[in-house]
Amino acid sequence: MPAIPTPTPDTQQAIRRRNLARVLRTVAAQGPLSRAAVAGRIGLTRAGVAPLVEELLRAGLLVETGRAAPSGRGRPGSELAVSAHGPAGLGAEIGVDHLAVCAVDLRGRVRARVAADAANRQSEPGPVLRRLSALLAEVIARIGAEGLRPAGLAVAVPGLVARGSTTVVHAPNLGWRAADLAPGLVSVAAPGHILDGLPLTVENEANLGALAELRLGGDGAELPGPPPDFVHVSAEVGIGAAVVVDGRLLRGARGFAGELGHVPVYPDGRRCECGGRGCLELYAGEQAVLRAGGITPEGAAAHPGPGARAALLARRAADGDAATVRALGEAGTALGIALAGAVNLLDPQAVVLGGALAELAPWVLPSLERELALRTAVAADPSRGGGPRVAVSRLGADGPLLGAAHAALQAVLDDPLDFRAPAHSPRG
Amino acid sequence: MPAIPTPTPDTQQAIRRRNLARVLRTVAAQGPLSRAAVAGRIGLTRAGVAPLVEELLRAGLLVETGRAAPSGRGRPGSELAVSAHGPAGLGAEIGVDHLAVCAVDLRGRVRARVAADAANRQSEPGPVLRRLSALLAEVIARIGAEGLRPAGLAVAVPGLVARGSTTVVHAPNLGWRAADLAPGLVSVAAPGHILDGLPLTVENEANLGALAELRLGGDGAELPGPPPDFVHVSAEVGIGAAVVVDGRLLRGARGFAGELGHVPVYPDGRRCECGGRGCLELYAGEQAVLRAGGITPEGAAAHPGPGARAALLARRAADGDAATVRALGEAGTALGIALAGAVNLLDPQAVVLGGALAELAPWVLPSLERELALRTAVAADPSRGGGPRVAVSRLGADGPLLGAAHAALQAVLDDPLDFRAPAHSPRG
Repeated sequence: MPAIPTPTPDTQQAIRRRNLARVLRTVAAQGPLSRAAVAGRIGLTRAGVAPLVEELLRAGLLVETGRAAPSGRGRPGSELAVSAHGPAGLGAEIGVDHLAVCAVDLRGRVRARVAADAANRQSEPGPVLRRLSALLAEVIARIGAEGLRPAGLAVAVPGLVARGSTTVVHAPNLGWRAADLAPGLVSVAAPGHILDGLPLTVENEANLGALAELRLGGDGAELPGPPPDFVHVSAEVGIGAAVVVDGRLLRGARGFAGELGHVPVYPDGRRCECGGRGCLELYAGEQAVLRAGGITPEGAAAHPGPGARAALLARRAADGDAATVRALGEAGTALGIALAGAVNLLDPQAVVLGGALAELAPWVLPSLERELALRTAVAADPSRGGGPRVAVSRLGADGPLLGAAHAALQAVLDDPLDFRAPAHSPRG
Repeated sequence: MPAIPTPTPDTQQAIRRRNLARVLRTVAAQGPLSRAAVAGRIGLTRAGVAPLVEELLRAGLLVETGRAAPSGRGRPGSELAVSAHGPAGLGAEIGVDHLAVCAVDLRGRVRARVAADAANRQSEPGPVLRRLSALLAEVIARIGAEGLRPAGLAVAVPGLVARGSTTVVHAPNLGWRAADLAPGLVSVAAPGHILDGLPLTVENEANLGALAELRLGGDGAELPGPPPDFVHVSAEVGIGAAVVVDGRLLRGARGFAGELGHVPVYPDGRRCECGGRGCLELYAGEQAVLRAGGITPEGAAAHPGPGARAALLARRAADGDAATVRALGEAGTALGIALAGAVNLLDPQAVVLGGALAELAPWVLPSLERELALRTAVAADPSRGGGPRVAVSRLGADGPLLGAAHAALQAVLDDPLDFRAPAHSPRG
């Protein structure tokens, strides 16, 4: 007879932690709010909410605005807001030719940001992580002066990350394989090992771009964001995508979902470095577009840094350069073919263009939308508005970095008590 | 100030219903089991389980096997099993050239099954549903004689079904558009309107094939089934797919996910009826393979019914007919290209070939696997076993029909009390 396992009921402690998180998330998303309004939105009584609010105030996660809440029944109180001086999420980005770090507070404001050009193509992780650590130390010092303390770090990389790990399995444009970023970031970290013990997440940049879109996106207003089912395409040097289903990232069995850049578009086409043929990246990736637009490698190298080459292409296209306009149109065609496959498979509500594609949308979109409409007609149901809409991200090249910072902060929102305990013991 | 909504706690009744479902599902999946074993597996005490078991026995959903349970502590009791005479799930399949109906009991056994050839290509729904209703009446009568009562009906169709509805939005090979199957099935139903009030689900056949794979699949053993992340490809006349993530079907925003047949494979290729160009179905669909294999439409028409033309192709290929072998190889190439896109996007653990593809696997697989390996190398992580494995369904052409019957039964397993109340009032 099998052993009878002990049931594991929700402990009081677990329920309290969950309710603390609900209070904090509600105020973060909708504050400032009165205690009564918080209680109402999460379906607890005012008496039930009061001790939770007190605990979050003591932990420095909530503050009273000092402004009296609009009075309902009972004693009026000050409105509650999330603290601008509590935890900060650190986001970092390792690009092919740049590094960037930013810090976002609970109110969602960017409190510090540094970036640097870098020659990371075909590099070794060690030196890159040392430079990144220096940028992190700078940002941590800046926000420390304003009373903010890092709650976690998320690093965006242009490559495949093993699910639930800090290991970059393959980042073709960096030339990295099987690189665990955790030891490098901790051992070389800034004075006092300030990163030691800090929760670390490593994530594909397109996934973080999609998270930023979920958190901050939408058509002009902060809220509502994009629909809960969308495919987010981002392009920097390579092309990546993220698939969001019911408001959650689809990561894939190994964490490798979203490799749109290597979806075959012209299967008998050119050889790709990945070993395949006719991959999307060969027709819509940055190098392909620069080449087709008549821009020499030397000309491109004169524009390093995030978004610089996209800006160059946009300028040339806006000036009416025929080769650039044609190159961007052909990239749109290839994107439309690859996305038609994705739409037929996934039936999303929207396709969102982010990263460099956002800036280049005026020249990429027409051919992209034409191909998409042509090749998804079987699923176009006029009574339901046809196929998915194609939207352009307002975040552009900032998406992955902002998404990283917000992802790092999410742990606090999910379990506020965890942050109250210092994330690392002071040293040095 | 916003109104304070009343919290909606779990009622005792809701908890009891959920626990009844847990008991029933546990016995269905793992029975026969003693009461103590059931209690152990769902984390309740024996005293907590006893009244639930009694209620399920009274409802005729559980039975005592009469065999004494291996005694642990306490009074020994008879082992429990799900009833072979309670509810049955009805599955129906509307194919391009056949109709089929089956009934499956709680033990997962097929208790009745009828099928008929039919000329459903470019048909009207009305006459097709009348024929289907007659087959349903026959199956219901047969299982009624054995003490089984239909608990629900699920209908598999080769087309797009609007999510959560009974409406076929578009079934190109049937020629149906915006066809709600519910009125047709109920109003023309067999004597006594036996289908009236019966829970009805209409679902894409590939989705139901994937559900069958989840429930009954696996590599030779009944359990364990396939991994929780897989892409299921099924081919009859058309080609469809279903995407399973974390053990659940990914349906898409409108319910249209899985349209693998219209993923562009050779984007400058032939025009497709869907309006696109170079869709997979033009190279790996049944008509394409028959034509490339040198089989005339007249020759094909002499082999109607589910699986008959696949069997014809398999026979010719086994006999070494060069045109057929080449046609199947080219179909495999096209499938491999389309699936490479899907694998790059979704990173599943496995690709499962079902429907007619299962029988044709010996001739389709080599080129399919070659293309897939070539075009997913960027995500192939040797330390994790490379890309996804390609498996062949053991269910073959039976998948969608069996999946439908199991889907219809799922409602009973999810909420046993609902079934106890007669699903329809007797008439006529």
